Amino acid sequence: MNKFLHKWASDLFPINRSITGKGVRDTLSYIKDIIPNLNVYSIPSGKRVFDWVIPNEWEINEAFIEDQNGNRVIDFANNNLHVVGYSEPVDKWIDIDELNNYLHSIPEQPNAIPYVTSYYNKTWGFCLSENQRSKLKDKKYHAVIRSKLKKGFLNYGELIIPGKSKKEILLSTYICHPSMANNEVSGPVVTAAIAKELEQNKLNYTIRIVFIPETIGSIAYLFDHYQALKKMVIAGFNITCVGDNNCYSYLPSRDGNSISDKAALHALKHVDSNFIKYSWLDRGSDERQYCAPGIDLPIASILRSKYGEYPEYHTSLDDLSFISEDGLQESVDIYIKVIKIINENYTPKPLILCEPNMGKRGLYSLISKQNSNTKGVIDMMNIISLCDGVNTILDISEEINLPFWDVNEIIKVLIKENIVSPFK
Amino acid sequence: MNKFLHKWASDLFPINRSITGKGVRDTLSYIKDIIPNLNVYSIPSGKRVFDWVIPNEWEINEAFIEDQNGNRVIDFANNNLHVVGYSEPVDKWIDIDELNNYLHSIPEQPNAIPYVTSYYNKTWGFCLSENQRSKLKDKKYHAVIRSKLKKGFLNYGELIIPGKSKKEILLSTYICHPSMANNEVSGPVVTAAIAKELEQNKLNYTIRIVFIPETIGSIAYLFDHYQALKKMVIAGFNITCVGDNNCYSYLPSRDGNSISDKAALHALKHVDSNFIKYSWLDRGSDERQYCAPGIDLPIASILRSKYGEYPEYHTSLDDLSFISEDGLQESVDIYIKVIKIINENYTPKPLILCEPNMGKRGLYSLISKQNSNTKGVIDMMNIISLCDGVNTILDISEEINLPFWDVNEIIKVLIKENIVSPFK
Amino acid sequence: MNKFLHKWASDLFPINRSITGKGVRDTLSYIKDIIPNLNVYSIPSGKRVFDWVIPNEWEINEAFIEDQNGNRVIDFANNNLHVVGYSEPVDKWIDIDELNNYLHSIPEQPNAIPYVTSYYNKTWGFCLSENQRSKLKDKKYHAVIRSKLKKGFLNYGELIIPGKSKKEILLSTYICHPSMANNEVSGPVVTAAIAKELEQNKLNYTIRIVFIPETIGSIAYLFDHYQALKKMVIAGFNITCVGDNNCYSYLPSRDGNSISDKAALHALKHVDSNFIKYSWLDRGSDERQYCAPGIDLPIASILRSKYGEYPEYHTSLDDLSFISEDGLQESVDIYIKVIKIINENYTPKPLILCEPNMGKRGLYSLISKQNSNTKGVIDMMNIISLCDGVNTILDISEEINLPFWDVNEIIKVLIKENIVSPFK
Repeated sequence: MNKFLHKWASDLFPINRSITGKGVRDTLSYIKDIIPNLNVYSIPSGKRVFDWVIPNEWEINEAFIEDQNGNRVIDFANNNLHVVGYSEPVDKWIDIDELNNYLHSIPEQPNAIPYVTSYYNKTWGFCLSENQRSKLKDKKYHAVIRSKLKKGFLNYGELIIPGKSKKEILLSTYICHPSMANNEVSGPVVTAAIAKELEQNKLNYTIRIVFIPETIGSIAYLFDHYQALKKMVIAGFNITCVGDNNCYSYLPSRDGNSISDKAALHALKHVDSNFIKYSWLDRGSDERQYCAPGIDLPIASILRSKYGEYPEYHTSLDDLSFISEDGLQESVDIYIKVIKIINENYTPKPLILCEPNMGKRGLYSLISKQNSNTKGVIDMMNIISLCDGVNTILDISEEINLPFWDVNEIIKVLIKENIVSPFK
Repeated sequence: MNKFLHKWASDLFPINRSITGKGVRDTLSYIKDIIPNLNVYSIPSGKRVFDWVIPNEWEINEAFIEDQNGNRVIDFANNNLHVVGYSEPVDKWIDIDELNNYLHSIPEQPNAIPYVTSYYNKTWGFCLSENQRSKLKDKKYHAVIRSKLKKGFLNYGELIIPGKSKKEILLSTYICHPSMANNEVSGPVVTAAIAKELEQNKLNYTIRIVFIPETIGSIAYLFDHYQALKKMVIAGFNITCVGDNNCYSYLPSRDGNSISDKAALHALKHVDSNFIKYSWLDRGSDERQYCAPGIDLPIASILRSKYGEYPEYHTSLDDLSFISEDGLQESVDIYIKVIKIINENYTPKPLILCEPNMGKRGLYSLISKQNSNTKGVIDMMNIISLCDGVNTILDISEEINLPFWDVNEIIKVLIKENIVSPFK
Repeated sequence: MNKFLHKWASDLFPINRSITGKGVRDTLSYIKDIIPNLNVYSIPSGKRVFDWVIPNEWEINEAFIEDQNGNRVIDFANNNLHVVGYSEPVDKWIDIDELNNYLHSIPEQPNAIPYVTSYYNKTWGFCLSENQRSKLKDKKYHAVIRSKLKKGFLNYGELIIPGKSKKEILLSTYICHPSMANNEVSGPVVTAAIAKELEQNKLNYTIRIVFIPETIGSIAYLFDHYQALKKMVIAGFNITCVGDNNCYSYLPSRDGNSISDKAALHALKHVDSNFIKYSWLDRGSDERQYCAPGIDLPIASILRSKYGEYPEYHTSLDDLSFISEDGLQESVDIYIKVIKIINENYTPKPLILCEPNMGKRGLYSLISKQNSNTKGVIDMMNIISLCDGVNTILDISEEINLPFWDVNEIIKVLIKENIVSPFK
């Protein structure tokens, strides 16, 4: 494909995203340059969406902690993790003892600035590394956050790639975290690359791709679309934490046995069986909404280092050096593999009773000796014997322990030879 | 609760019970003092009940073996196990060689008087320890049994504790063994204590408790009630061998997967997972009738040392020292736990689509940091995600591997917050 | 039974069978002497059967390779494996270099003459041992095959042994290989012996036995009969490789869970649990047709050394010394056991509610002591408790881990005592 994945990530990394506001819009704008068919939508602050309300937009222009000598010891301009997300404005001199109540650091990770938010509880705060914090020796500091919370919009992007069927495969990724690499920019980068590749294919199923703020974004999206999605979505994935080089992780859908799960586990087994299999109880992203009782979409995740499971998670250490071009590309590749499985899987029906005569078709060893059939012929005969009008190609692949993509090549030969029925 | 369990056992122990007669009535009378709502019923001798006939009552006043010097070497007055149950009357001098045909002892357990009955085959006999037997050196002995077999009644007790639903949980225990402690008086003692405690609760389901002679009693009871029971009983237990301090045992229902089985195995796992799990093929008490083909009730047993599996079983060594206040009380406790599970289990339906906003309810960490949720919050969110209108609370408890009683506390909070539907 | 099994094998061994022609007819004629009710049928060359065409008959009178001194260095008269099956006629002097293209040997098995055929591709060839081949030092040889390919018939034998029900158990074996013992003459020999024995029994089910050429024979037979077979056949076996003394092998039906599979695996477990269990993917004989999608018959195989899995397979080393009277007889015995299981299996219904009174029937220990019941009584009570109108006798046998034949003896007692319902 391309070699721009890490470049895209680097471009998106510095943007100060939150669940609403300019950061989201700038991110969507960048993605629209990659996939121009993307449509961007706005939901107004204050709108009720199920049990939630779309929050006000958070705008921040400047924030710092200044010492008594006028030195900015912590400056939002240096790292947008330095301010607690959705902090209210503040501008006051404050005793170090009181200030400590508004500071967040991680003693066990002295170099890491933690990522902290407070969307639904009005407060303010600064995040800094333990090393930075240990240098705050003054009695008083000047804490300044020039932010606003005001009516505005929650924005998201949506791309529909039409297929032969109106049934859909849903891909979702999120765009609400400031400067962090694996969680989060790897998600929109990999998803954009998948979109670009899928747009070049004739597809059996329609692909729906959304770029949304996590949690409130998927809830808002579902509020407007869940009845249609329940009817149309046959499979899907929440794409996140797909940038590093560590082994794959798998987070199942709530159902655990959907075609999303089967296809993903099949691909992982054949691509790199040494992956970590999590349970539904380990979930933590938008599958919480997509798979919620009553919503019930079959949404799973293939990840690399999973959110919550690596020490750099939700800190400044999850930076561009934590992800790689290879890690991003392999994630694109496995998702494309899985989507192709779902897209091409069907139940081939036998068109001939008893074994077909493969000899007359030139597909069989014509002289029969002890063990004269090659593995390829044995595979083909096994596949024919399992095309019973009940098994899907994926079922057959599992049964004979071959990758879907190899079995599917043989199925194509069998279709050509009028031995089994084609898709649909 | 109380500290009277072993006292009750001690009071019931000396009564000479058999499958009919005064011993049964005296026992029921004592239990009625504990649970005054108990009703006592009588079924006349000679009545046909399925493949069986209610036997005559057996009355015994005196029985002994006298030596030639007039010493009573074996005397029923000393231990009511000394006479074979349902012995016919006898009064004759008899050569030791012939007498031996009527004596029962256990060479491998020289101190134990065995418990022997012959309900359906007319004969007589004495039971004695091997040690006692070895002292019988005379040539002749005078064998005397002053017993009668006469028309009368088979008696049983029944207690109905009404619940909101007419659907029932059935508890059954038996009252037909003479002086033995674990098998049997632990059964009626623990069952009476359970009844006393359940009477103090508002229950969703009706509780039906029966105190019956084993086998012929449950067959007779089922003959009159099985059609109603098949409609109404959703779960139940045969309560026996619940007095000693050894690890728990579990005997499943024939089905093996009823709510009785699920609730009992769940409670055992969380109370003391080190229990012995028997199979239906190890059955041996009234579940043989309750679970019989065509009767098909879901009746299981939680026991301590199971009948047939401990050397003291069915001998005079199964005495009051074999059981303990603690053993009895723990058995009451686990049955109460299991009955509460069955009584309170239901399928909570989700009342909100997507995740509820827990923050606004004060049930969630408002400031989001790396891994900021406590185990309690994670448990709560897991439970919400599994309340899908299909899973019961017990299913959810199994899925997240927490005890039902803990999950149920969280469910109560969710009901209060209008997040899930209440019982019924 | 008899001691003629190896004799029959020895008589059948030398016949030069192929998929059509005199060898098949001579073989069927010999088998008709054993089971006179066998009917022999003919299907004309050229008939289309599903995806195939019945081939011409192959007739061969003489074949040899002659050296320049007139010595026949290879002679079909010595071993009918020496000629590639369905070889075209040839009569020419040929350079050793060119001749080598028409010679088949196995370097790894220098004593073995391989078995090679070319039914559907016109060619000719000789098979010889590597040792024989290494002696061909001349420059030219005279290759002579006096064969004909001409319109004729494909023949097969069919025997129907009527039972009470028109539902059928199908046994199939093949008669198209020249002089090889385990694969193939053990198959028709064992099948003929089974037929002989079954003819002496009153059977619940009808038995259909076919002796056919492999592959084209079963395809042709199914072409004419598959609709009837799909309605009637409840179980069946393809009988092959049943002559040697090695451990049993098992090849399941495609379904894998049919009554054929259950009965066969049950019998193998109790007769000799040390057997090799193959999968459907290891198939290789007429189950390929009988179990093909759309045909869907429940046909499995119990074998000794399975085709393709022993070095002597499809060579001259699979000779009469490879099989034995004992091996053949044990194969007859296990098939008879399995067929009897299928024939006698049914779902006994309980005729009495609650446990029956076994004492009054003399089937129970009348005096009840600690552990007074024998294993036989416990087995009987277990069986009664599992006769629920859902379990078959085979299900019950599996549940209590006793052989069907033992459980069935107890069922017969229970039928006599009006405790459970009889067959049908």
